[in-house]
Amino acid sequence: MTDITTLWWDKKTENLHYINQTLLPGKCTIGECQNIAQLATAINRLEIRGAPALGVAGAYGIALATRVCQKSDLTAFFADVQKDAEILRATRPTAINLSWGIDRVLAKILPLRDIPSVRRVALDEAGTVAREDTACCHAIGNYGSALLPDTCTILTHCNAGALACSSWGTALGVIRSAVKAGKLVKVIACETRPLLQGARLTAWELARDGIDVTVITDSTAAHLMRTSTIDAVIVGADRITCDAVFNKIGTYMHAVCARHHNIPFYVAAPLSTFDTRHREKDVIIEERARDEVTTLGDRVFVPDASGVKNYAFDATPMTLITAIITEHGIVRPPVTIDSILSLKST
Amino acid sequence: MTDITTLWWDKKTENLHYINQTLLPGKCTIGECQNIAQLATAINRLEIRGAPALGVAGAYGIALATRVCQKSDLTAFFADVQKDAEILRATRPTAINLSWGIDRVLAKILPLRDIPSVRRVALDEAGTVAREDTACCHAIGNYGSALLPDTCTILTHCNAGALACSSWGTALGVIRSAVKAGKLVKVIACETRPLLQGARLTAWELARDGIDVTVITDSTAAHLMRTSTIDAVIVGADRITCDAVFNKIGTYMHAVCARHHNIPFYVAAPLSTFDTRHREKDVIIEERARDEVTTLGDRVFVPDASGVKNYAFDATPMTLITAIITEHGIVRPPVTIDSILSLKST
Repeated sequence: MTDITTLWWDKKTENLHYINQTLLPGKCTIGECQNIAQLATAINRLEIRGAPALGVAGAYGIALATRVCQKSDLTAFFADVQKDAEILRATRPTAINLSWGIDRVLAKILPLRDIPSVRRVALDEAGTVAREDTACCHAIGNYGSALLPDTCTILTHCNAGALACSSWGTALGVIRSAVKAGKLVKVIACETRPLLQGARLTAWELARDGIDVTVITDSTAAHLMRTSTIDAVIVGADRITCDAVFNKIGTYMHAVCARHHNIPFYVAAPLSTFDTRHREKDVIIEERARDEVTTLGDRVFVPDASGVKNYAFDATPMTLITAIITEHGIVRPPVTIDSILSLKST
Repeated sequence: MTDITTLWWDKKTENLHYINQTLLPGKCTIGECQNIAQLATAINRLEIRGAPALGVAGAYGIALATRVCQKSDLTAFFADVQKDAEILRATRPTAINLSWGIDRVLAKILPLRDIPSVRRVALDEAGTVAREDTACCHAIGNYGSALLPDTCTILTHCNAGALACSSWGTALGVIRSAVKAGKLVKVIACETRPLLQGARLTAWELARDGIDVTVITDSTAAHLMRTSTIDAVIVGADRITCDAVFNKIGTYMHAVCARHHNIPFYVAAPLSTFDTRHREKDVIIEERARDEVTTLGDRVFVPDASGVKNYAFDATPMTLITAIITEHGIVRPPVTIDSILSLKST
């Protein structure tokens, strides 16, 4: 398996480079962010997406903000960087990792007292976030792989793969680690309307690794659960509160159907995805533009006179989740602050 | 509400005309079938689709076959017509109404002994099938409307509307009849991947009638069932055996989720959809071409190295169905041959 690096700091240009995910699988092109406005646009357009990758993007975003700011007064400098941080944070309200990555770098630099140190430390910390994310994915992969039968068919939704992280992947990291461990894994990838991250990204990165992958429309999942063998569902997460997992719209439907068919439902996510300060009711579910649903290429499929609702995420109550696979081990519901803290301390 | 006629016999050209459903909502164009090959192509391409409409198309198809055949020997004439009937029947293996419409006209003409009578009776009987289908839809509408609260939100999948019948619709016939009876009905239309009949056809025909309709991606349905008020799910059917309802892929997923949320799940279908001779295991679920899932316009969304499964239908076991709304009244599971026959006799 050849690993994919999704976003990285380019030393020559001193800015952030990334694989533009909106053009896959047709074109694999590299995007470049020279400032926070460009990064915010790339995130809004989902050229960079996936919860852990957004954490890394948030961290590099602060490094970029310190690189770009020309103020020499430290107070004014930090005011600019924090303004950029809030622009970045506002781009995706549901995914928590973005804020987590931003805050992690901010916490490192705000105590510093000279701008060259701030710039150096911000970039170092962002690099650490990226490396740690890759290490987390491999740890998640190893813990998750142990849960899978030696021969199995796994259903996944959206893309919680290398492209959603710095590399390797969370849900797809589990699959990669299982394949690396010699297990025979077939993957059913739900296409994931409206933006088809399953069809475009999951199928692309698994097929590239020679892993057996079959794309279905999202609503075919329940039919396969009933008529063929699905051994487990594994998805990623954009935010995990003590009572719910927020992930790509459609996740809840799969969880309900998995429960109906007694199929284990696993969530693979690093601890940076956990938000123990809030509950489901506190979290805003991002609604995105109508045209993501109505339009493909130059063809409009929904008449103008019809309404459209386009939720980017849904919430799956913890009661439907078999286990959460983290980099520190497996959490089984009920999920409490103590169960998370005890994992962290191990 | 201005009624839509989906397919009809054109007296001037002496052939079958229909609304081409693949170009809606952008273009409403009229197609024309001069022979069975053209009709079979129109059905294969889903230019004509929807179980009751296929019944009417099957009936008119036999009328068309009798019109086109130039043989003067009666035995040879019937041999040609029956060959055409089998070409037509093979186009869609799951929907039973197509065969039902074909067989109904064949049963009327095969005892006849002169070709002019055969032609006249075939066309008369096809016209009767079309008129009866419209009457069935209005009867289904009236029975179904009585099941709905005075103010309600109904979720539907695919298009079981006027465009799926000769006119008015089955599932959407229930909604139209409820609106006509003064009820305040809002409709959630699932877009219905891969061919988007919900987004394209259901939204188009309801918006055209001034009925409040909102399109969602298929996997959003469960999220709305949990977080907002869905009072009932109503769908059509392509075949109903005593143990299962065959309908557009995705129907089973909605039924599982409706049961999880204690939402009534109704099927609206004429008795011509019932197949009491077979059970679920006997019915072939049509698999369609890969490119319906992978391609939209000129853009391919799934890499060539990935597999694709494209089932046109799924089977929902009778245990998940609250009631079936027919033109003779409501059938509640368990569905038996006797319960169907007793309806027919009322």
